[in-house]
Amino acid sequence: MSANARIAEPDEAISFEELGLAARNHGLLLEALRYDVTPIGLHYLLTHYDIPAVDPGSWRLRVDGHVEEPITLRLDELREQPRASHTVTFECAGNGRAKLSPRPVSQPWLDGAVGTATWTGTPLAALLRTAGVRPGAVDVAFAGADHGLERGVEQDYVRGLAVDDCLREEVLLAYEMNGQPLPPQHGFPLRLVVPGWYGMAQVKWLTAVTVLDRPFDGFQNEIAYRYVETEDGPTKPVTRIKPRALMIPPGMPDFMSRERVVEAGAITLEGRAWSGWAPIAQVEVSVDGGDTWKAAELGESGERWAWRHWSFAWDAEPGTYWLAVRAADEAGHVQPVDQPWNRQGVGNNMVQRIPVTVRPA
Amino acid sequence: MSANARIAEPDEAISFEELGLAARNHGLLLEALRYDVTPIGLHYLLTHYDIPAVDPGSWRLRVDGHVEEPITLRLDELREQPRASHTVTFECAGNGRAKLSPRPVSQPWLDGAVGTATWTGTPLAALLRTAGVRPGAVDVAFAGADHGLERGVEQDYVRGLAVDDCLREEVLLAYEMNGQPLPPQHGFPLRLVVPGWYGMAQVKWLTAVTVLDRPFDGFQNEIAYRYVETEDGPTKPVTRIKPRALMIPPGMPDFMSRERVVEAGAITLEGRAWSGWAPIAQVEVSVDGGDTWKAAELGESGERWAWRHWSFAWDAEPGTYWLAVRAADEAGHVQPVDQPWNRQGVGNNMVQRIPVTVRPA
Repeated sequence: MSANARIAEPDEAISFEELGLAARNHGLLLEALRYDVTPIGLHYLLTHYDIPAVDPGSWRLRVDGHVEEPITLRLDELREQPRASHTVTFECAGNGRAKLSPRPVSQPWLDGAVGTATWTGTPLAALLRTAGVRPGAVDVAFAGADHGLERGVEQDYVRGLAVDDCLREEVLLAYEMNGQPLPPQHGFPLRLVVPGWYGMAQVKWLTAVTVLDRPFDGFQNEIAYRYVETEDGPTKPVTRIKPRALMIPPGMPDFMSRERVVEAGAITLEGRAWSGWAPIAQVEVSVDGGDTWKAAELGESGERWAWRHWSFAWDAEPGTYWLAVRAADEAGHVQPVDQPWNRQGVGNNMVQRIPVTVRPA
Repeated sequence: MSANARIAEPDEAISFEELGLAARNHGLLLEALRYDVTPIGLHYLLTHYDIPAVDPGSWRLRVDGHVEEPITLRLDELREQPRASHTVTFECAGNGRAKLSPRPVSQPWLDGAVGTATWTGTPLAALLRTAGVRPGAVDVAFAGADHGLERGVEQDYVRGLAVDDCLREEVLLAYEMNGQPLPPQHGFPLRLVVPGWYGMAQVKWLTAVTVLDRPFDGFQNEIAYRYVETEDGPTKPVTRIKPRALMIPPGMPDFMSRERVVEAGAITLEGRAWSGWAPIAQVEVSVDGGDTWKAAELGESGERWAWRHWSFAWDAEPGTYWLAVRAADEAGHVQPVDQPWNRQGVGNNMVQRIPVTVRPA
């Protein structure tokens, strides 16, 4: 159907195309890991094509396909459906891509393609029960209003999700973010929220929910978001978020290099950790670039699908250090110290490393 | 005091340091030029150091220095002062830097470092009158809470502004953006708003307003934000925003290249234009990359300091085109077709050019 992402040559620098994507698709500023819920504007943002201009008055959601009775809903009708809120950590499947070597050429994320928001909407399962999913249903296709070209294929952004995943009670059709109507860039007037999954599943600007009696075979599932190990070998779909911990870079930055300078003394390192597979079991910190690790203290476990706070007391003596942090979840997944490379640069949860200079207090 | 920005070698690609800045400091997605007022999260954002964590309960604003009576105000006291709102277009002085050849190495902006917000706060002039500016006052220093290193100099972000500029009635100490408390990234709890000036004057996270009986000589005025033509020659301060027009890229994008495909037929090209020197007098559009120009239609002139809508009817026939747009203001400034190069890459208001393929309808 279409080629994989190009792999950059060894030592090939960032291109202007990649810069153009980086200027549009912004990451979380890592100091914003301090907020339990990410303020609007600091949450990561990836837009495949353009943010569409949706008129909420004429907008409708269709629920159709392999159902007993198709439904069409206005926005005010959706808001009258049962209401639920969940605080959920989202992460782009491509987070960390630009740190891979060699680098798959696409949106060049460093560490920041993450954020946590409180999403409010109506549970998808209830709406599907109202429409009546017919026996033999396999997948559900979620269509967004954003339209463009990708690797030669013109398309609306559409993703498929297995019916069983759609019936999880925490899956929402969300019309509010952090207590406000969805901002345009986060899917106004309605988006899908699939807790635990990477961002490609969280379809924005929803227009149609179509139940299928066959596997969904569209571009975003079959081509774009797959683990591709070799050029011609078998591939696997990208689904849930692998565990990751991130640290708030301590001390103060240099404007240009973003390198950190810290005053010697007792420092509290802190940040967040999350996994879409299972609750976080452990966070470990290294102050020697990954040679030795010590357990961090975990904060209260809050909502299941939101990141968890961690902290670590460090008695920082003058010198230069590579700080690192890694998370493990209760399903036994541990963040790797070495890169988990693949041709599309997805699911790279290699540990974050932060160079720090500690100067005398 | 400190060196200028490094100039990249001819054809030197974007570095990882520049990518790190691009991932943090995000531009306006150009399709968001459709909104009169930019939604929070789509407005451009530049953070010199880290977003500081400010506790609004213990936060105070000091107004001191060369005044009759220094004042210290809590946030609730500031909100009791006279209240005013202005819709203002902000632009980073470095907008367009990455398009310069050779490229000064700093935050690598393309076209999008712009946004328009409605700022609400209290007029600075009234507060200065209350404190009583003493005879002989020259400049006022505005100190922010963000702290870091820049070209070897450790500093809080501080900018100076001439007393006369501070007494313009439209200059605000703003505590709301688009009707909401300032988001952390836009200066919570208080920022300066100087309509018509580039972003470096709009000091965020304000802690002190200090009247000086001498010219302010801090880093951000004397080193960072200056027009530097030659390595050793005289320099000029960066002040007001030069005229610029931007176009909403028409049609649909390719994900990776962001190149546009448009259906043949009657197309309305549209966008915004602004100048900090004088109201917009004219916007012109070229569909041949700048060889010939035709006048666009200007929308209503709204608030003086907000951008102005423009539109242009284009009968698009199949082929490939370079679209371009340029603005002129009533003071006689016109956007240049060729780059206005300088060593720090500031004030580059060279016209935007958009490659477009028109395909048969």
